Amino acid sequence: MRTARALLTLLTVILVPNLAADEGMWLFNRPPKDLIKQRYGFEVTDAWLDHARKSAVRFNTGGSAAFVSPDGLIITNHHVGSDCISKLSTKEHDYIREGFLARKRADEPRCTDLEVNVLVSIEDMTSRVNGAVTAGMPAADAERARRGVMAAIEKESLDKTGLRSDVVTLYQGGEYHLYRYKKYTDVRLVFAPEESIAFFGGDPDNFEYPRYDLDVAFFRAYEDGKPASTRDFFKFSAAGVKEGDLVFIAGNPGSTQRMNTVAHLLFARDVALPSTLNALRRREVTIGTWAKRSAENARRANDDMRGIENSRKALTGQLQGLQDPALIEAKRIEEQRLRAAINSDPKLAANADAWTAIEQIMQRQRNNFFERAFIANAGAFNSQLFGWARTILRHAEETAKPNADRLREFRESNLESLRFGLLADTPVYADLETLKLADSLAQWLETTPNDPLVAQVLAGKSPQARAAELVAGTKLADPAVRKALVEGGKAAVGASNDPMIAVARLVDARARELRIEAEQTIQEPQRQAYAKIANSRFAVSGTSVYPDATFTLRLGFGTVKGYQGPEGPSFPAITTIGGAFEHAAAHDNEPPFELPASWAKAKSKLNLSTPFNFVSTTDIIGGNSGSPVFNKAGEYVGIVFDMNIPSLVYNFAYKEANARSVNVHSAGIAEALRNVYGANELLRELGIQASR
Amino acid sequence: MRTARALLTLLTVILVPNLAADEGMWLFNRPPKDLIKQRYGFEVTDAWLDHARKSAVRFNTGGSAAFVSPDGLIITNHHVGSDCISKLSTKEHDYIREGFLARKRADEPRCTDLEVNVLVSIEDMTSRVNGAVTAGMPAADAERARRGVMAAIEKESLDKTGLRSDVVTLYQGGEYHLYRYKKYTDVRLVFAPEESIAFFGGDPDNFEYPRYDLDVAFFRAYEDGKPASTRDFFKFSAAGVKEGDLVFIAGNPGSTQRMNTVAHLLFARDVALPSTLNALRRREVTIGTWAKRSAENARRANDDMRGIENSRKALTGQLQGLQDPALIEAKRIEEQRLRAAINSDPKLAANADAWTAIEQIMQRQRNNFFERAFIANAGAFNSQLFGWARTILRHAEETAKPNADRLREFRESNLESLRFGLLADTPVYADLETLKLADSLAQWLETTPNDPLVAQVLAGKSPQARAAELVAGTKLADPAVRKALVEGGKAAVGASNDPMIAVARLVDARARELRIEAEQTIQEPQRQAYAKIANSRFAVSGTSVYPDATFTLRLGFGTVKGYQGPEGPSFPAITTIGGAFEHAAAHDNEPPFELPASWAKAKSKLNLSTPFNFVSTTDIIGGNSGSPVFNKAGEYVGIVFDMNIPSLVYNFAYKEANARSVNVHSAGIAEALRNVYGANELLRELGIQASR
Repeated sequence: MRTARALLTLLTVILVPNLAADEGMWLFNRPPKDLIKQRYGFEVTDAWLDHARKSAVRFNTGGSAAFVSPDGLIITNHHVGSDCISKLSTKEHDYIREGFLARKRADEPRCTDLEVNVLVSIEDMTSRVNGAVTAGMPAADAERARRGVMAAIEKESLDKTGLRSDVVTLYQGGEYHLYRYKKYTDVRLVFAPEESIAFFGGDPDNFEYPRYDLDVAFFRAYEDGKPASTRDFFKFSAAGVKEGDLVFIAGNPGSTQRMNTVAHLLFARDVALPSTLNALRRREVTIGTWAKRSAENARRANDDMRGIENSRKALTGQLQGLQDPALIEAKRIEEQRLRAAINSDPKLAANADAWTAIEQIMQRQRNNFFERAFIANAGAFNSQLFGWARTILRHAEETAKPNADRLREFRESNLESLRFGLLADTPVYADLETLKLADSLAQWLETTPNDPLVAQVLAGKSPQARAAELVAGTKLADPAVRKALVEGGKAAVGASNDPMIAVARLVDARARELRIEAEQTIQEPQRQAYAKIANSRFAVSGTSVYPDATFTLRLGFGTVKGYQGPEGPSFPAITTIGGAFEHAAAHDNEPPFELPASWAKAKSKLNLSTPFNFVSTTDIIGGNSGSPVFNKAGEYVGIVFDMNIPSLVYNFAYKEANARSVNVHSAGIAEALRNVYGANELLRELGIQASR
Repeated sequence: MRTARALLTLLTVILVPNLAADEGMWLFNRPPKDLIKQRYGFEVTDAWLDHARKSAVRFNTGGSAAFVSPDGLIITNHHVGSDCISKLSTKEHDYIREGFLARKRADEPRCTDLEVNVLVSIEDMTSRVNGAVTAGMPAADAERARRGVMAAIEKESLDKTGLRSDVVTLYQGGEYHLYRYKKYTDVRLVFAPEESIAFFGGDPDNFEYPRYDLDVAFFRAYEDGKPASTRDFFKFSAAGVKEGDLVFIAGNPGSTQRMNTVAHLLFARDVALPSTLNALRRREVTIGTWAKRSAENARRANDDMRGIENSRKALTGQLQGLQDPALIEAKRIEEQRLRAAINSDPKLAANADAWTAIEQIMQRQRNNFFERAFIANAGAFNSQLFGWARTILRHAEETAKPNADRLREFRESNLESLRFGLLADTPVYADLETLKLADSLAQWLETTPNDPLVAQVLAGKSPQARAAELVAGTKLADPAVRKALVEGGKAAVGASNDPMIAVARLVDARARELRIEAEQTIQEPQRQAYAKIANSRFAVSGTSVYPDATFTLRLGFGTVKGYQGPEGPSFPAITTIGGAFEHAAAHDNEPPFELPASWAKAKSKLNLSTPFNFVSTTDIIGGNSGSPVFNKAGEYVGIVFDMNIPSLVYNFAYKEANARSVNVHSAGIAEALRNVYGANELLRELGIQASR
């Protein structure tokens, strides 16, 4: 007993999370006050935290943002706002290419289907959620019970507060917290620069540094048709940061796998990532080739292409990280230490089987892997129209059931957001839809040529012919048609002979079966196993452990700091606006290194030594795009927009050496608004002098 | 008996190859004289044929060409010559981008590693080759015996004639003909336009029509340091063709699968093509992203990228063709008819099992499919340096064996050509080599992560780190090092500790094993089965059947003819030079739709109504690129450079409706040489007036 204790003490010392420098995506209800105090001598107060939380905004399209005026003015990345900007564009006015500036509020156009959220409160619900699952309950029952109790908590909260209420699974199942959000569904575009400066350097420069991108866009939240009153906002600093400054971020990192076991990582390395990358590259080539045929094709495909290229590059970096045996070896050692600690503490004995359980789950994941990808996750149907068809079909069926029994996205508390997206007047391009659907159907046919469902869906035609027929035949592009079906419920949907609804119906039995099977035999046992691992970690290392990212609000901190490249060259902490012109010239000003005409014209007026982009050691991942970067005084000093190649491995582990997040400097934003765009109203609202 | 006979007669009528319009890639020793006479009233004479054959040139990099002057002047496509043009380019002089014109013969630079061939004679060797294989011989022995007799025939012919001698397998094994070639290894560059006009419209316009491309380049064959004397050449016609004209082509279609059984086609549809396309798309994205980072990267990657994009688009079209159930159904009916004919003729009974045999072979092809692709076919090693390492290693081992026992490419008669390519002073770009090798090693790791050979090759490192180490460590980029190893034979190669040689050695046992297994259990039985099918076809339909393409000289014919698109618009038979300017303007003159500065400058001098490109019904496939298009008088009227999307299915079946080959018009070539490039010497040599 004594020996075991001694060993445990020793291990505890080793296992106290050896947090690398500025590591961490911290929960707002579990902030690393001591760590920041100790490392930077800065006292984080609750008031300071609350202000940051209420000033931070989540873009539900997958990014972060912030309020920067009391009148609902929001700043985010151009690439986070581009979904809206692109949907507001037409053949005549391509705001992605040309940029956009509303000179007065009446000129701010409303995004068709954008919802943004502000986090109001967090409440720990772990014991209530786990209480619904009793010891020895079969996984299928456990999954149902857990889904039921989560939907019930959310419904109760919605009814009581009127706020969007989401139970978030943290520590892969270790804890369950209830997040309540104020939501805004009337969001309007205020300003977007041309994409050629927002995404200057394009895909070649993406995830690279030094950079020179004005990756920003301004929106405004409205309530009751008027600009929202937002008492909490970050005061914009025209001075911004300098090298060595301490900075904070408040954003929504999407997903990391830092707590994953080695078996889980190997599954990602050998199965999941290669397969996702194959699909991404295929889409990149198919859609990219089509986009290059004309400017209008390029406009239509722009948002798809940016997303695909970005994911492909990010996941390639992740996979390369996993393909480095050193990373896996480090994870193995970490795992062995934790398992040794468990084995030496009888109180933790029940947790010892978690790793074997995950190993078995990973084996199980290989079964039906492609069926799940193509049918359950609709990989065979890369089509907005099909997505709507499936949602309409399921909406009719699920909403007829009690709340606790529904597929999770149809839980009562989520229906308003779901219908908002489904019924919005979103543009549909029949040519692009046909191209995408044909290609994904073809991929399905190529991957599982003998699945009888493939033949049924193709109905004796080639993927091209079938996709053309479905897209031409469906009426779902019309939001009024979707609305009538949603409101008509089971009867209306059952009577519909819309060909896309018919295809969704044809595959739905198998799609649901695969999904339920995955929820019961993969996700639920995985949550239970990770709960054991998380609890072991808490027992061994205390609760100063942050959970993996879940696209919920997190606090990060770090330093503005340059770095050394692998072969010597040193990368500056901060670039300048003049650097953008030099970078363009070094590439013969050819796209994507061609600055927009507005910048070429403004060159003589610009102060070329103005800071433009900068790097910092803050710990981020996809979803953090658009996160406000603020200083100790809570002033807005920049915006996260990218991470460099060495930091792509952040998905699995934080490393400081040469990994950095890449941000736009607030001084660069101010200089561009002033001397390129003459956005005087906007500058005034930000509290910045409109002229030098 | 009578009934059977009557049925056979009936079937024979049906089975007389129902040649669609201008179908056919005809052997020069079996020309379709009657067909041409019957359809076009033109008498093909032996002299006319001989002249065409001797004027036609094969580019061993994979294309076709022709002599167009008595001084060895060769015209081919820019994209066929680009391998040489690109290897002659440097960071300072990018002839791909800038174009090239030798004002005098002394300025014509020599291609580093180009061999071109002119077909001298064809001799049927079928009975001698088949004679080496006795009835009931096990497949392994049969394969060895066949390889041995082919090598012996080639060696005898080389010794006797001094000519390059290749035994060509025709009708998938139905016949074996000996092709003798005069070869030229001193080939020099005379003229290349800028790639932006040679490949105007780039990948987006590739395989499309209408087109406006000057896809030509001129070279010159030298002998003993002097321009080769080429008595046979096509006289260049500055007038060219008009709509409705009968035209001929003499070129080297690379490979078609028109005779393949349905089981074989389904293997291509479900296994081979999807896997090849996955690899191509991966390379396109990996190399393409790198190429976009700088102009110099783009230059280095240009030839790879063009090849990859072209193959990807061609194979996508082929796969889409096979994914159309109507095509498979038509093939199935054709197959059933031939099998019924066999079943009703006792003399053909022994051929009846051919289809089942091929079905079984296709099953067998699935075994070790990825090992064969990655190890035997070196898909894991997408690297010029590795290719050289393997060839050097095997050269030492194989040349120590008797001729009949060697791997086929090391047969005595091929050694000179093989060494010419291996020892040429070819540029190697270490950065691009590392990128390609790292990506292919990663793909191998992803596809077969548990193959112990993968781990041995990676040696505990990531694919990136290992590739960088191998490329940095090998000395094989130096042709003198390669030469020393080749000349040093087994002793020198065995003593080498070059890391790339070491890796080639590490995988070679398994690579050879897989190759031999494929030759014995797939290729040989497949030849035997197809021989039965071919012989049945001859028995039923006579010998008026042309064999599938084999990258050997074939005669084609057709008509200059526009067509209707699927949704109505009609495509003109001939485009004009003025159309190029309109096409550029319609795409805002943005790359790849930006005409070179030379064309913009010359616009006022050009006769914009000059024919530029045209379409014809001639039956072609990849490898036909650069084929001379000539008229009844044997005059050079154009050059094949592309096929439109509907014709991609030519790989499996010829269809006339809207399938067309795409050619540059000789009048357009002349006009460009005259008024854009002022290539007066060249015009004079072609016998064209240098000024209007």
